[in-house]
Amino acid sequence: MTQAVEQTSTQNLHVGKRTRRQDAPDKLTGRTRFTGDISHSNLLHARLALSPYAHAKINSIDISAALEVPGVVAVYTGETLELTNPTSSSRTQSPLAIGEVCWSGHPVAAVVAETEAAAEDGVALVDVDYEPLPVAIDPEEAIKPSSPLARTQNSNQAGEIAGGDAHAAVDTGSVEEEEEEALSENVCNKVHMKLGDIEAGWREAEVVIEHTVRTRPVHQSYMEPQSILVAPSVSGHQMVVWPSSQGMLGVRSDISKALDVPERQVRVESVPIGGAFGGKFGLIEPLGAALAYRTRKPVRLVFTRQEDLMAGNPAPQAVISLKLGAKRDGTLVAFQGKAILDSGAYAGAGAGLLGYLLTTTYRCPNYDLRCYEVLTNKVSVGAYRAPGAPQAAYAMETAVDKLCAELGMDLLEFRKLNALREGDLMIDHRNWPRLGLVECIEELQKHPLWVNRAEEKQNLPAELEGWKGGIGVAIGGWPGGTEPAAAACRLESDGTLSVVLGTVDLTGSDTTMAMIAAEGLGLSVDNVNVVHDSTDTMPYSGGTGGSKTVYSMGPAVLAAVRDARQQILSIASNMLEAAEGDLEIEDGKVVVRGVPNKNVSLKEVAKMSTRRYEPVYGRGRAGNTSTSPMYSAHLVKLAVDPDTGEVKVLDYVAVQDVGRALNPAEIEGQMHGGITQGLGWALFEGYEYDENGQLLTPTLMDYALPHSFDVPHISTIMVEIPAPLGPYGAKGIGEPPVVPVAGAVVNAIADAVGVNVLTIPVTPERLFTALNEA
Amino acid sequence: MTQAVEQTSTQNLHVGKRTRRQDAPDKLTGRTRFTGDISHSNLLHARLALSPYAHAKINSIDISAALEVPGVVAVYTGETLELTNPTSSSRTQSPLAIGEVCWSGHPVAAVVAETEAAAEDGVALVDVDYEPLPVAIDPEEAIKPSSPLARTQNSNQAGEIAGGDAHAAVDTGSVEEEEEEALSENVCNKVHMKLGDIEAGWREAEVVIEHTVRTRPVHQSYMEPQSILVAPSVSGHQMVVWPSSQGMLGVRSDISKALDVPERQVRVESVPIGGAFGGKFGLIEPLGAALAYRTRKPVRLVFTRQEDLMAGNPAPQAVISLKLGAKRDGTLVAFQGKAILDSGAYAGAGAGLLGYLLTTTYRCPNYDLRCYEVLTNKVSVGAYRAPGAPQAAYAMETAVDKLCAELGMDLLEFRKLNALREGDLMIDHRNWPRLGLVECIEELQKHPLWVNRAEEKQNLPAELEGWKGGIGVAIGGWPGGTEPAAAACRLESDGTLSVVLGTVDLTGSDTTMAMIAAEGLGLSVDNVNVVHDSTDTMPYSGGTGGSKTVYSMGPAVLAAVRDARQQILSIASNMLEAAEGDLEIEDGKVVVRGVPNKNVSLKEVAKMSTRRYEPVYGRGRAGNTSTSPMYSAHLVKLAVDPDTGEVKVLDYVAVQDVGRALNPAEIEGQMHGGITQGLGWALFEGYEYDENGQLLTPTLMDYALPHSFDVPHISTIMVEIPAPLGPYGAKGIGEPPVVPVAGAVVNAIADAVGVNVLTIPVTPERLFTALNEA
Repeated sequence: MTQAVEQTSTQNLHVGKRTRRQDAPDKLTGRTRFTGDISHSNLLHARLALSPYAHAKINSIDISAALEVPGVVAVYTGETLELTNPTSSSRTQSPLAIGEVCWSGHPVAAVVAETEAAAEDGVALVDVDYEPLPVAIDPEEAIKPSSPLARTQNSNQAGEIAGGDAHAAVDTGSVEEEEEEALSENVCNKVHMKLGDIEAGWREAEVVIEHTVRTRPVHQSYMEPQSILVAPSVSGHQMVVWPSSQGMLGVRSDISKALDVPERQVRVESVPIGGAFGGKFGLIEPLGAALAYRTRKPVRLVFTRQEDLMAGNPAPQAVISLKLGAKRDGTLVAFQGKAILDSGAYAGAGAGLLGYLLTTTYRCPNYDLRCYEVLTNKVSVGAYRAPGAPQAAYAMETAVDKLCAELGMDLLEFRKLNALREGDLMIDHRNWPRLGLVECIEELQKHPLWVNRAEEKQNLPAELEGWKGGIGVAIGGWPGGTEPAAAACRLESDGTLSVVLGTVDLTGSDTTMAMIAAEGLGLSVDNVNVVHDSTDTMPYSGGTGGSKTVYSMGPAVLAAVRDARQQILSIASNMLEAAEGDLEIEDGKVVVRGVPNKNVSLKEVAKMSTRRYEPVYGRGRAGNTSTSPMYSAHLVKLAVDPDTGEVKVLDYVAVQDVGRALNPAEIEGQMHGGITQGLGWALFEGYEYDENGQLLTPTLMDYALPHSFDVPHISTIMVEIPAPLGPYGAKGIGEPPVVPVAGAVVNAIADAVGVNVLTIPVTPERLFTALNEA
Repeated sequence: MTQAVEQTSTQNLHVGKRTRRQDAPDKLTGRTRFTGDISHSNLLHARLALSPYAHAKINSIDISAALEVPGVVAVYTGETLELTNPTSSSRTQSPLAIGEVCWSGHPVAAVVAETEAAAEDGVALVDVDYEPLPVAIDPEEAIKPSSPLARTQNSNQAGEIAGGDAHAAVDTGSVEEEEEEALSENVCNKVHMKLGDIEAGWREAEVVIEHTVRTRPVHQSYMEPQSILVAPSVSGHQMVVWPSSQGMLGVRSDISKALDVPERQVRVESVPIGGAFGGKFGLIEPLGAALAYRTRKPVRLVFTRQEDLMAGNPAPQAVISLKLGAKRDGTLVAFQGKAILDSGAYAGAGAGLLGYLLTTTYRCPNYDLRCYEVLTNKVSVGAYRAPGAPQAAYAMETAVDKLCAELGMDLLEFRKLNALREGDLMIDHRNWPRLGLVECIEELQKHPLWVNRAEEKQNLPAELEGWKGGIGVAIGGWPGGTEPAAAACRLESDGTLSVVLGTVDLTGSDTTMAMIAAEGLGLSVDNVNVVHDSTDTMPYSGGTGGSKTVYSMGPAVLAAVRDARQQILSIASNMLEAAEGDLEIEDGKVVVRGVPNKNVSLKEVAKMSTRRYEPVYGRGRAGNTSTSPMYSAHLVKLAVDPDTGEVKVLDYVAVQDVGRALNPAEIEGQMHGGITQGLGWALFEGYEYDENGQLLTPTLMDYALPHSFDVPHISTIMVEIPAPLGPYGAKGIGEPPVVPVAGAVVNAIADAVGVNVLTIPVTPERLFTALNEA
């Protein structure tokens, strides 16, 4: 069920209507072809030899036996692949280990063969002489000076931040100063953020709570694994790349850098991708390209599911300690925090972003936050839907519930009182723009499940006899991002409009762009084709992600369409002998206002434009410099089996400020999807390692994704607080739904059984243990 | 040797400089990959069964034996290919015969197989039961009511005009009226054009001459034969087409129409093409696409050289009778003509254009022209470099020499006196714009070879003892064409500029566009990349041809670059804190005028534009509505062996008004190439048929192309009369060089041996016969 609140306008023809995603029929019927499905003549297949050790010195690699396998064409190691900077602190730039393996799963060699089977056989015969080294696994241990080093080479370089936060384009307001604490060289990034005077805050505080929560690495679990196909172009002058990636120009840039070739020699083609969630901002592309470049043949590399779990780039594990101080009236006055992000074997977990995110829900005059990224012998990490925010919100929302309990205050009243509002000071001393967090909370306060929460928690299905009901709330969101963008559009000879974009179509973004264009021009959505070509010609676009695509690219599309509209009116004015100001475009026709039978179809305009006038070709550029934060408030009802620790989620209500619901059906889908992923964070998903750094959850048999029967009915409520710079008032919508879920679930479990579980996912085992300890 | 005359400007940095073609290194080293070189997984190969009869009824086609050949996948006939209109009067739309074959070479079936050899074997086993029908071969016979009909079906439909003249975009000023002459139904198009009062003209004329000349079909002889590869797209929703074609959107439109699918389902990719000269404006593309569409497999069809001669679309054979009247002082006062164009088995030879072209060299107050297109049992025809103009100029220039002889007037003085000038009335009652014909003639008058012609014709190489020297002149040109065009450009992160175009790169057009862009922005040519993607996204472009590409697309490129320049200055103004008006772009940097060390590189601007401002993305649209005519004056010295009829061309001088010589090296190449092709028309090339319509010249052993040793030293002289709407004053340059050659050569032969040969090519046999008859 979807309700839209505060509908700002009803005169639009397309925007605001539930619209089927243009990519949906093909995806539902299995007709979409992904990178792994693309055939290419003389295609070679690559497979990787992965390290069995979490940390070891490589004494030697003997590839001779692998090369003997019939069908094996070449075997490369980090040394023979000859990348520009093979020991770069960026994993993307140094995809094969040199001298040292730093996690169990670290690729040490790539075998290229005529068949995948031959490549597999080759991998089995790559003979690596490893000398095991001590491991750093637990981030709380790894941060200590006494810890073994996770890397003996390049151990302390601040790496490039992967996709998510780089694209969030936020100033994290970090404070440059020397830390006094003694830290291990595993610490690869430290951020200290301050606002106000924390000591004054503690003096003012009448109630203080503190707690520490822990999360596990969580995988993005896109359906399509990391995949790439690279082939020499027909002319031989370019590499043509079909990546499963969220950003085409980013892939071009990564490959150009790794191979030290000009960007114009890399052509990245647009290809449908099977999910990403932040995990496809660049990982295996330079490796795939290098294999094709060295062999001068088309090469495909597609991870198996196990490889994707072992050698992908999941969300980082976090340890977050918070101390909150409030006055008796509930006003938050002091906020201190320390966060450790486990960055795995490469820097880039986004400590600064995590710290910043801790400050983006509640107003507080006095902040003091220290965040650390620490290297361990685990797989490197990447962005995952609202990167850092699920961890931050889990820490924050469970702490807030604890504070409310101390204060004896209503959970939503406290949140409403302290929720960020327009004009509040940000940690970086800017002021928050218009945002809809209070409105989301107010909407949730009205919901029957909240109003009747006391009865509702008793009202469990008959089959759950003996279980304990609980109701939990949490809030959270995403500060938003923006990036300059450009778009073109072309009127076709059949009267349809082609919108030319460089964005990767994800979560229905192309469909939304088609709606924006249709609305802007006066055409039906079916008559708008969103089209993509390669990085050679596409208008500039950043990666699709960070809930910034519609907000950043939408205005460019709208500008392009308005440019085209002006051109159309100019031509039609000439054809109809009417003033441009008297013309309107309606339903594929240019009509003279008030003289409906005096009109000319867009088809006729298009034909004349390429015969006698100028082709209708619009271009739009946009560079929003201010973001539009997006918030949500969640409410969950669940039941806990006190005997086993099993949790069953029974009902879910999510309110979200979407700015303007361009395609309510799609937003609903995003909310459902994000909440489902959030339930994964809360209850099911997490990497577990043994003390040697062996991953205990390397398959989907061990790593538990939520099933459809784990997901309850979800009520979605959209609040529409228009974003001033968003197209038709729209803002981003993809990140917020995942953010508050773990907090809400853990709070509801506490409500049900009185136990705060301080580590997610709350597996039955973990809850059972906590119940027994309590 | 090249001389440039009347240089209009010298301050440009790039325009006007001899610049190497960007495509040259690859083409010279064989690295370029054409359609026939593209590999594709699971590629099938098509071969065609061609009719051995020039005209026959098809009683039946038995494909069963062909289907039995191992590797043969499918065999299609005109009936089973299921095109939208399989009996269309457009050959492109009805590529396989239905019921009747109309020329020897008419495709009757297509065999698709796993290998070309299997397809060939299949073709050999396609069993067609033919019933021979009477043939119409000679156009002068075919026009008579007594002639057999060349087609018993669809015999009298005016077909679509192929590429060349459709793209010349001229109004032929034809007069609609009933002809009284009894004509065969083979006549598929008649045009009657008039200006002034022809009877009054004859009354005024003091000298009248008349004569009739004949030409043969001439093949464009592009190095790459007709080729196409079509594959289902990865998604299955589109056909992806790699054609050897001059116009990508034309191919899309042709295929869409033939298969009755929306244009958006056809994606035409940009692929280098190996010559075209007008012969690749659409021929086999719907056939190739249909084979892929029906088999749902990738299919390639590449003509052999013999197939290209038998089933291509050469320039039409013409019979042109002219009657000219002049006053004693040399003023041309009456011009009557009748032209028959042999259209082969399909209409579309461009009779209207031919008639128009007869009026585009000399001013004359009284015209009366009748032109006919007649169907015969020969291969259908197409455009070939200045379509119709070599035939028209051969007729006209030899007639003018005859008139000059009667008048006792200097050949160049007569031409100068009567040459078209700005303001003269066109046959369609418009006035001629600025043109440079007189200037070309004047330039030729000054040339030593002309000044010393009396001595020069005696001055033959020692080895030609006994040969007779001759000097000939001729003039001619091309009225020019234009077509709306659009372009985009994008500043790259490395500071280079990508220019996005939909034009097919021919004769260095991409290089010229890069020069225009470099000049417009202030970059070196090496830092401009002209890039192409598919018809899905490309800015609108017509086909490359008709000497209109630089003239039509150049302004769009310049507009796009100026748009980008403005964006760059706006960003740089912000970065440099300087007024936009004080900024200039020089050598890849934006500099503050007068403060050279205050500058920012385009690379920095590009990077900032995608971070903080708006991406630099220019678009240009152009719709020149007035053409810029282009003329040339040629002078040839040759020698004739009176004993054998052999002709040896010894020296050649060509003067051409090029508007503005953007890339003199390329123009020189165009002039050399066009003159060489003109020598083919004059002396070597021509289809010959026997009385049954069997082609006697189906291979390059029989059809004689000029060899390098047949081509003399060519002196090129460029006159620069700027075209007001052309980029930097440029106009088209490709068509004119071929136009006057045959006239000049035949006039020189007459000068040498006193015999006017009235049929080209002037083979030794033909000249020997004429000498003996004289």
